[in-house]
Amino acid sequence: MEGFNLELSEQPESLEQILVDCRDTLKYGVRTGHPRFFNQLSSGLDIIGLAGEWLTSTANTNMFTYEIAPVFVLMEQLTLKKMREMIGWPDGEGDGLFSPGGAISNMYSVMIARYKYFPEVKTKGMSAAPRLVLFTSEHSHYSIKKAGAALGFGTENVILLSTDERYGILIPADLEAKIIDAKQKGYVPLFVNATAGSTVYGAFDPINEIADICEKYNLWLHVDGAWGGGLLMSRKHRHKLSGVERANSVTWNPHKMMGVPLQCSAILVREKGIMAGCNSMCAGYLFQPDKQYDVTYDTGDKAIQCGRHVDIFKFWLMWKAKGTIGFEQHIDKCLDLSQYLYNKIKNREGYEMVFDGVPQHTNVCFWYIPPSLRGMPDGDERREKLHRVAPKIKAMMMESGTTMVGYQPQGNKVNFFRMVVSNPAATQSDIDFLIDEIERMGHDL
Amino acid sequence: MEGFNLELSEQPESLEQILVDCRDTLKYGVRTGHPRFFNQLSSGLDIIGLAGEWLTSTANTNMFTYEIAPVFVLMEQLTLKKMREMIGWPDGEGDGLFSPGGAISNMYSVMIARYKYFPEVKTKGMSAAPRLVLFTSEHSHYSIKKAGAALGFGTENVILLSTDERYGILIPADLEAKIIDAKQKGYVPLFVNATAGSTVYGAFDPINEIADICEKYNLWLHVDGAWGGGLLMSRKHRHKLSGVERANSVTWNPHKMMGVPLQCSAILVREKGIMAGCNSMCAGYLFQPDKQYDVTYDTGDKAIQCGRHVDIFKFWLMWKAKGTIGFEQHIDKCLDLSQYLYNKIKNREGYEMVFDGVPQHTNVCFWYIPPSLRGMPDGDERREKLHRVAPKIKAMMMESGTTMVGYQPQGNKVNFFRMVVSNPAATQSDIDFLIDEIERMGHDL
Repeated sequence: MEGFNLELSEQPESLEQILVDCRDTLKYGVRTGHPRFFNQLSSGLDIIGLAGEWLTSTANTNMFTYEIAPVFVLMEQLTLKKMREMIGWPDGEGDGLFSPGGAISNMYSVMIARYKYFPEVKTKGMSAAPRLVLFTSEHSHYSIKKAGAALGFGTENVILLSTDERYGILIPADLEAKIIDAKQKGYVPLFVNATAGSTVYGAFDPINEIADICEKYNLWLHVDGAWGGGLLMSRKHRHKLSGVERANSVTWNPHKMMGVPLQCSAILVREKGIMAGCNSMCAGYLFQPDKQYDVTYDTGDKAIQCGRHVDIFKFWLMWKAKGTIGFEQHIDKCLDLSQYLYNKIKNREGYEMVFDGVPQHTNVCFWYIPPSLRGMPDGDERREKLHRVAPKIKAMMMESGTTMVGYQPQGNKVNFFRMVVSNPAATQSDIDFLIDEIERMGHDL
Repeated sequence: MEGFNLELSEQPESLEQILVDCRDTLKYGVRTGHPRFFNQLSSGLDIIGLAGEWLTSTANTNMFTYEIAPVFVLMEQLTLKKMREMIGWPDGEGDGLFSPGGAISNMYSVMIARYKYFPEVKTKGMSAAPRLVLFTSEHSHYSIKKAGAALGFGTENVILLSTDERYGILIPADLEAKIIDAKQKGYVPLFVNATAGSTVYGAFDPINEIADICEKYNLWLHVDGAWGGGLLMSRKHRHKLSGVERANSVTWNPHKMMGVPLQCSAILVREKGIMAGCNSMCAGYLFQPDKQYDVTYDTGDKAIQCGRHVDIFKFWLMWKAKGTIGFEQHIDKCLDLSQYLYNKIKNREGYEMVFDGVPQHTNVCFWYIPPSLRGMPDGDERREKLHRVAPKIKAMMMESGTTMVGYQPQGNKVNFFRMVVSNPAATQSDIDFLIDEIERMGHDL
């Protein structure tokens, strides 16, 4: 705040000052495109994607109607179809939209599931339905719970499922037990979220086993592949989403694993036409039925938004420029790099892995144990001290500005580092650098 | 679709082809920045705003935490405060966020109102509350109804209020009558939306009179200023939002009247801290309480999104470059232009105005009556023929590509043109051109 005048005033500033402001904004910002930025699932800066975003800004249009975004609407339809083909739905048929992010895409899935089973809720509200229950793993993204709160289910009706110790994946038997339990209480199970690439552990829930249970009890199956969906692009890794073609809906964020600039998230739905049924309000000023073109290209009414930013072009352009094969190489490379990290630290002195299994995604979760804690017996004192290590190292990273990686506690586990790689510009030497930095900064703690 | 290969394939395309794709995208697109594009509330292309968006794309970061978007988070806080000051809340105190558009901002207002009066809905769902009712004018934006459907109220519990003939503004007596009626039925009135600048007519609901009723019955007052909020920047026109300081929440889209590139919409709330109460889920992997900085700068948990695009910078930069005074000039100019249009056609042969009053915003709604219909007595035949005029002229406009303006029916009124001006690059000669085009294209219908 010091030395950078953020205040807005009555009078215009000079162009020189505006350029200084731009420079300062970049100077004090965080370089998320740097290969040593490992702090979020979204990182990197693809130059074609950036060019696509610049063109999009220049076109400055709106996705709600074909008449003002004809090219972008066609690109969106074609790209969504291609994504549905990769999911494995017959002929890529179905529905979908790009939304402002994974949380909103997940919210769509819950809304659409509700509309499928209880369409009268649209007009009459939640009181027209029995007590509906949603299921998701304790390691799933918090947006499922947020959707439960926002859409009127209530967070208490979002049942968290247990996960296994080895990988942090949902335990199907626990799902079935909790479905039976809910039914016995007189509640109505509606929706199951299977996570393909959990936020912290990078775990892939066993979709086929979950789909069996959903079929048995007639529940909507959503796959939250916001983080892991990109693996569908890789022949080597797509088996981790095996069964995804049995889902009713899928969230897939190209702005995460595939390096598309923010924002770029897709909600994909197997049943054609259901999104319009769920969301349409038929506003006369936008969706006139007497237009001179096929008004099914006016996609706005199936969104919960009215105006909708053009998120498709940068992604489409990157796909053109890289080909499917280019995304595959990108993904395989990031997964190789995290494997390199895992191999490097799993038996290294001063490291403990947070879960037993080999990482399924690029997430590598670990504790760094400073020398002062290495001989200490497990117990409250060690736990408390270890809990403070990652925040301290992170603070030093931020002050020195050399690298950045996330940490968090999880359940009864004290603060640990979550390393993720989604920037294909990262190399083994960047991984080596991270480890050196952690050890340098953490050595005397 | 012909002559433009949109298909995505396995293999990469050459850089030359990518450049051709970019050129084709612009070639077949619609020039929303052109001064003769009058089709939507968002138009124009501000060059500083564009530069701001380009810098934003280059920074490619995410608003959820201060640690990765320190400058943008501070800019957002400061700009929201400035907007709250312009609304007239004491010291600009309160809460707010930039959201992906006016529909989502309006959805926030309904969620927050529900949380204020029935906080237990967050955990227990809508069944923990009585039957809640929302009120909004028949001319208000459809996003209020959409929010009612999405959030579990049901569209039947979104009560549409009558409007006057002269301006299309909400009739306060009808609001009060419908509140009383709802209470008599045992329902619980919760929320009233007053529109500041309706989508079609540009009408400003009488906020002070509505606020009196909201205070009397203890209801949440939201002002949807998505379209009209910008008038707060104008000393000449801000009186149209008189009473806005009495609202509990306000939607204001700088991407409409103020010419900021899409997307840029703010939800502003008078009560400080309530958004976090409403939406927070305290995800440990993002919102660690033991960070080395003041974590109240981590705004992500008060959003319904997780990742959130940086919408602030382009707006902040435009404000710096134009000053408040520059926005005022922009707005006054657009309103002057629409006054020019209104004066030009109100008594011109072949035109009928859709409502009696002088336009309050830049919306000018009118029928063009081709010579063949001018002598015809009012009745079904004339109505049916007139209904087809605007779509035919619009189709010709789109085919010739010379200009573009919206049309729609409304209630029992057949298709009419809705002219809007938000691009300060438009001039009187562009207005003259539009009228000439309509007459040239419509003359022989």
